[in-house]
Amino acid sequence: MTTQSIFEQIQLKKSFLCLGLDPDLDKMPPHLISSSQEPLFDFCKTIVDHVQHLSVAVKINTAFFEAYGVQGYAALDKLIHYIKSHYPELFTIADAKRGDIGNTSLRYAKAFFEAMPFDAITIAPYMGKDSVEPFLTYPDKHAVLLALTSNEGASDFQLKMNGKQALYKEVLSQSQSWKNASQLMYVVGATKAEHLTEVRKLVSDSFLLVPGVGAQGGSLEDVFIHGSNEKVGLLVNSSRGILYAGSGEDFAEAALEAANILQQEMENLLSK
Amino acid sequence: MTTQSIFEQIQLKKSFLCLGLDPDLDKMPPHLISSSQEPLFDFCKTIVDHVQHLSVAVKINTAFFEAYGVQGYAALDKLIHYIKSHYPELFTIADAKRGDIGNTSLRYAKAFFEAMPFDAITIAPYMGKDSVEPFLTYPDKHAVLLALTSNEGASDFQLKMNGKQALYKEVLSQSQSWKNASQLMYVVGATKAEHLTEVRKLVSDSFLLVPGVGAQGGSLEDVFIHGSNEKVGLLVNSSRGILYAGSGEDFAEAALEAANILQQEMENLLSK
Repeated sequence: MTTQSIFEQIQLKKSFLCLGLDPDLDKMPPHLISSSQEPLFDFCKTIVDHVQHLSVAVKINTAFFEAYGVQGYAALDKLIHYIKSHYPELFTIADAKRGDIGNTSLRYAKAFFEAMPFDAITIAPYMGKDSVEPFLTYPDKHAVLLALTSNEGASDFQLKMNGKQALYKEVLSQSQSWKNASQLMYVVGATKAEHLTEVRKLVSDSFLLVPGVGAQGGSLEDVFIHGSNEKVGLLVNSSRGILYAGSGEDFAEAALEAANILQQEMENLLSK
Repeated sequence: MTTQSIFEQIQLKKSFLCLGLDPDLDKMPPHLISSSQEPLFDFCKTIVDHVQHLSVAVKINTAFFEAYGVQGYAALDKLIHYIKSHYPELFTIADAKRGDIGNTSLRYAKAFFEAMPFDAITIAPYMGKDSVEPFLTYPDKHAVLLALTSNEGASDFQLKMNGKQALYKEVLSQSQSWKNASQLMYVVGATKAEHLTEVRKLVSDSFLLVPGVGAQGGSLEDVFIHGSNEKVGLLVNSSRGILYAGSGEDFAEAALEAANILQQEMENLLSK
């Protein structure tokens, strides 16, 4: 999917919401666990069906499926195929944090772009250019590089100088010179909204995937003010705030309501 | 598995060989592809059966399984269970390069330490302390942090200063202060053997997982001279050099011969 198509969806839906799917059996509605043969898939499918019209992207956290072994991996595979065939307008991100030497990254690209039909995958940039470029050889597919993450550990290495600038800035600026760099996006945490201005100086055109609004304490308005560009350029993720808005039989309606509040806030910001 | 047990296996087998399993259908013997229902599993099983007595560790590259979708993931699961039940003395490493915020890393730990019975997993340290510590809450399980990798991209960020020292050194020294740091190991590429002396100044006791001998050009003797400690402290990986030593019906015998040469060389170094 091209970034132009994402921008068009943002305008159409008046939303730059990325629905994050981190399904956790311990937090799901008990009635669903007891009645479903495939609770991971059924829970996520129900949420997606209810919230897709308010979202432009879906980010699936692969760890929450891998934790349940082969069965979990099969649910991941079934879910992405379901989303792709029913809602092809949604931009789909495998939040998988992969990245390895070239011939191995090529396999991960096959895993997420061929065996599964994701549009994008998150990548840890620690191993440098040749660990990322294989993902960019697929036309209209995207690698979402970790730049500045929303967790405490971001300060361990990312915020320290790497050569002449902070490591996360070095990742941003170096990666812009890599082959097919226009297919790169970046993770920048909402909890670090004050850094978004700096980020935009280095990558004015790229889309930013922004976790950390809500549960982790980031402000949507701050993110928009400091991080948006002329094509919006933001996909703001919400996972737990939507998925576990309710824990009873009305969990899907509660999710819809939570997503609706976010979308309304986004519509307000977009119309300013 | 404790590092003491690994050391005992090294003494017993006179080897510090880590067998790397990166199964590639394009490189496997054609007769196996055409005759087997489960070529990924059957190929790896045959190699392991022939080479296990010369190896102290097995490193499975998860990307080469994920590339084949759910079927590939099922083969990975079957393979690790087979190895664990038949050769419990082998130290097993999931070469998976995971790492994410705490509650997600916990899921990856479940995936590789519970759903699958690996002893260790490789981790990209970009997201810092709280992305790594969840893996270290499992007694006798290990996180193998990427420090200095064997690829060209290692020079993009790892070799540049991060604060007062190169990023890879900062990863080594900071991580030694994390909780349960005695369960950490580190990836240091054989192609960077001249850096091993520096590495040993910072992590004298930890095991190092060393890829890059053979196909990538690193020298085993250099690695041993600069990287070994009093408990050897090295697991030197060989993947392609063993897996694809032969391409005919005698591929397992060719693999055995290749592993034998490496083990002999290791035995010579150990007896010096």
